Amino acid sequence: MTSNTERLPVWQVSEKGKSNTVDVVVKEFPLTITLNNREVVTLLCSPTNLDYLAIGFLFSEGLITGKDDIKKIIVDQQTGVVRVESEEDKGFADELLFKRFITSGCGRGASFYSAADVQNLVKVESDIEISASQVFALVDEFVQRSEVFKATGGVHSAALCDTENILVFSEDIGRHNAIDKVFGECMLKDIPTAGRLIITSGRVSSEILLKVARRNIPLLISKSAPTNLGVRLADDLGVTLVGFARGRKMNVYANEWRIVAKSGG
Amino acid sequence: MTSNTERLPVWQVSEKGKSNTVDVVVKEFPLTITLNNREVVTLLCSPTNLDYLAIGFLFSEGLITGKDDIKKIIVDQQTGVVRVESEEDKGFADELLFKRFITSGCGRGASFYSAADVQNLVKVESDIEISASQVFALVDEFVQRSEVFKATGGVHSAALCDTENILVFSEDIGRHNAIDKVFGECMLKDIPTAGRLIITSGRVSSEILLKVARRNIPLLISKSAPTNLGVRLADDLGVTLVGFARGRKMNVYANEWRIVAKSGG
Repeated sequence: MTSNTERLPVWQVSEKGKSNTVDVVVKEFPLTITLNNREVVTLLCSPTNLDYLAIGFLFSEGLITGKDDIKKIIVDQQTGVVRVESEEDKGFADELLFKRFITSGCGRGASFYSAADVQNLVKVESDIEISASQVFALVDEFVQRSEVFKATGGVHSAALCDTENILVFSEDIGRHNAIDKVFGECMLKDIPTAGRLIITSGRVSSEILLKVARRNIPLLISKSAPTNLGVRLADDLGVTLVGFARGRKMNVYANEWRIVAKSGG
Repeated sequence: MTSNTERLPVWQVSEKGKSNTVDVVVKEFPLTITLNNREVVTLLCSPTNLDYLAIGFLFSEGLITGKDDIKKIIVDQQTGVVRVESEEDKGFADELLFKRFITSGCGRGASFYSAADVQNLVKVESDIEISASQVFALVDEFVQRSEVFKATGGVHSAALCDTENILVFSEDIGRHNAIDKVFGECMLKDIPTAGRLIITSGRVSSEILLKVARRNIPLLISKSAPTNLGVRLADDLGVTLVGFARGRKMNVYANEWRIVAKSGG
């Protein structure tokens, strides 16, 4: 079975001396995704759930429209290629691939991001509310599930939740990849994402916010910091953005009305 | 003066209640780099030292060969464009730009990375040694200088050092960008990099290792974890790779002979 980690020899060094031991290190795997026999991208990722990652990525980039659009998925773990065939070949223009938009984020670089992306997005409409206690309980469970991170300090985690439970959980060396794996799994297993929550271990930059808003998700909770563009987009797109959700405290940067301080509400 | 941060209103929420305050959030800025009037890339970055970033990026990608190759640098902070003109137009092939290689890393995505990159690299030859005490002292100073990170939790830092002092320091929301800013500054100010150290706050993936080895730097010290490919390349390319340099301990993953445990050596 493929794992996301590898055991490697390491020297632990202090001012007192050196000792030789074994450390768990996170794997970095180059995955090439093709769509209708055309190479779309090579991602550096963790080598598990490659089908979820490929489908999540293609959907995030607007290259497939949904599960019905997928004719075939062939995963070749040996060569590091996932081949996807779609019903509707959107015939993505060379100029889209040509234009390299390199992002700030762990795990994703070039993206078909443009002003049009934002303009085409509709505001997330959802009356869902969640208590602070529920958020803390979900984040506690999220942290407990992040086993690879605990072992190696090297991966990001992402999860889809309702207000009570983690429904889908994934890990990847890239914070974008981790979220794409969640969305890919949701699509392939017909798990609805609208009106639910995403928890991420990673920073919330503009692209992460767009990715989540595109799924009509009203609540994004991060253990880390947001960027100013992430906050601005959350404001504009009606997404409740929580950062630094650690212990029994959190910062709410946008649309704070969905977070109810007192529990039992 | 441009700063890397912005003050935004935020709600601090606990189970006891909500309070409204102001938080410092890191800025995310789209920077387009052109070379000889051709658009090369758009990076999401922190909005300072854009000239260093552009030059460091172009050099890392092999699109300029050195300081003598640079005819002109025009920074337009308003529109977010840095225009670089070079003596020698390497006429980078469309196919290079076309091929998107998306990395695991914060701050950089598509890269002209290929097997050839590794084959063309020569092993870093340097007899430099450093004591554990010197590493800890440098990392302590590095952490103290990382003011933006302390304020926002949202940026990476990188520094070029000799065994005693930090020589060049930079910050960016992307860990690749932070290192490119260091190298861009070194190039424009004629600061040698060979035989020196890089300290980074970020994870060491294969691309970070390649970037550093290309500069003939024998010591790479990270506060975070390496990936398995990062370790393998460090082994192969003769780079001493330190991870988890925190407090008075560190892990040495490759070429540990350059780290001397006892001080005063």
